[in-house]
Amino acid sequence: MNDLAPYIETGKQLIDDFINAHFIKKGYDKKFPHNKFSLADAMLYTLAMPGKRIRPIILLLAAESLGFSDKKKLLPFASSLELIHSYSLIHDDLPSMDNDNLRRGKPTNHIVFGEATAILAGDALLAEAFVMLSDKDYVGEFDPVKIIETIRELSCAAGAGGLVEGQFHDVNSFGESLEPEKIEYINEKKTASLIASACAAGAILSGKDERVVSEFRKFGCYIGLAFQAVDDVLGITGNKEILGKTAGIDKTNNKLTMAENIGLEKTRELIKEYNEKAMAHLEKTGAETGMFIELINYLTDRIN
Amino acid sequence: MNDLAPYIETGKQLIDDFINAHFIKKGYDKKFPHNKFSLADAMLYTLAMPGKRIRPIILLLAAESLGFSDKKKLLPFASSLELIHSYSLIHDDLPSMDNDNLRRGKPTNHIVFGEATAILAGDALLAEAFVMLSDKDYVGEFDPVKIIETIRELSCAAGAGGLVEGQFHDVNSFGESLEPEKIEYINEKKTASLIASACAAGAILSGKDERVVSEFRKFGCYIGLAFQAVDDVLGITGNKEILGKTAGIDKTNNKLTMAENIGLEKTRELIKEYNEKAMAHLEKTGAETGMFIELINYLTDRIN
Repeated sequence: MNDLAPYIETGKQLIDDFINAHFIKKGYDKKFPHNKFSLADAMLYTLAMPGKRIRPIILLLAAESLGFSDKKKLLPFASSLELIHSYSLIHDDLPSMDNDNLRRGKPTNHIVFGEATAILAGDALLAEAFVMLSDKDYVGEFDPVKIIETIRELSCAAGAGGLVEGQFHDVNSFGESLEPEKIEYINEKKTASLIASACAAGAILSGKDERVVSEFRKFGCYIGLAFQAVDDVLGITGNKEILGKTAGIDKTNNKLTMAENIGLEKTRELIKEYNEKAMAHLEKTGAETGMFIELINYLTDRIN
Repeated sequence: MNDLAPYIETGKQLIDDFINAHFIKKGYDKKFPHNKFSLADAMLYTLAMPGKRIRPIILLLAAESLGFSDKKKLLPFASSLELIHSYSLIHDDLPSMDNDNLRRGKPTNHIVFGEATAILAGDALLAEAFVMLSDKDYVGEFDPVKIIETIRELSCAAGAGGLVEGQFHDVNSFGESLEPEKIEYINEKKTASLIASACAAGAILSGKDERVVSEFRKFGCYIGLAFQAVDDVLGITGNKEILGKTAGIDKTNNKLTMAENIGLEKTRELIKEYNEKAMAHLEKTGAETGMFIELINYLTDRIN
């Protein structure tokens, strides 16, 4: 039996619909529309790229595995994660960073809109996450203390405590030979921190105490580390067309991924280890684990 | 009698101390410190530039003019405005944007730390504003509904509803001849929106209803427009050393400011008009107006 596939399909649709409705509601760029494109066009371009929406889905799963039953109420929180993720993708791809021209099979944001607009679209997506999280039409029925805790969780992951710190060490290590411990640290910040926050936010919003929130955060951290390690393996073994990005880009930057550093076999062992650690934390939460076991298998066995 | 000067001095010191204590408390970059500099170094570099701290001061003034008496409780909110302002300065100065090498008399962030780190420092400062605004050690004694309203106010101004939209139209108008109406729109978004939010936030935090908040927002919008127009006048008449930035940079980009477009005399009339409109809104709020009258004079008569 596979319950996860329809769950992901439904979730993706709800999240995409929520994000689109949000931009229609806000009506950005109605005054002085730019001839060629608007800021909202550039924001929506990367948001609308075909993606797994894995971070929003994880937030939904976390809350629902703990008994929260009204999925629709979770959508602003789940969608805000996709805004934060898209902001980080746009900025990571910039010429001064990873200088990547292709993302999910399409030209990257700065290739289409130019570098200045791409930087601004990323900035605007990051700010928009907090516009969404503080909109009382969306979140007004939640305990405001829980909303603030969620904002804290996501803002920490989005900035110097997470994504940005990871990318900072990443771009400032080009050409350096990194020990696996530092690669893991970068992966934890750059990839795992937002997935960990998605898990923690789901637990916060379902009303759980700090102990459960913390176990969920650790669970998310390990599945995030596994997620990145699988990406690194696919970077070596994967098919460029299926991956939808330029193969070997990390090598171009003289930046060794975990899989390139310790080898494929050891990386596969590491993925197994991360997944086991993740499950150990999950089992302490009292959550329904069935869908998460499916999720771990889905994330580990994927080909893109 | 001048009460404003000591008020600003005290406020600046409190805000700078609060920001410094915040970074010490967070202890970013303790693991794997970078050889040359850390992400926090790049964030603090622009934050620590000598500045007027005018946005935080305006938030303090707004709340205190409405009877809120515990200034220290306002510091996380006031300081978060300076984080947002610094993020926008760093990104505006980037080579792909205004390409400015000098800011407040010092090399800009990307000149010192490189383009990638400057982009990341800006990103991290924006996220950090929301870390600060959602830290219960800082804001725990406030009504959480008011905190969420403040987050909404500031996130709207920081992104597509404000700063970013203004900068988007600014960079995408290089070389174009703009009508004064569009220049005013850009100034409203790029400069006035965050000042308006500082005013609105002060009113929200002092517990006032939406009517007073809205009048304060409009007041802030007009003093923000006046502030930018004064900047534009100084861009023509000012001394580069006193201004602390490269003179004539806007002309280099073929981008006419309001003062260059409609002339100095008409711009001075406009400043007077903005200030009068600002006062008309302020008078509807029931706030103490004395310090704000001093503030308007201070902002209008400044030389940098």
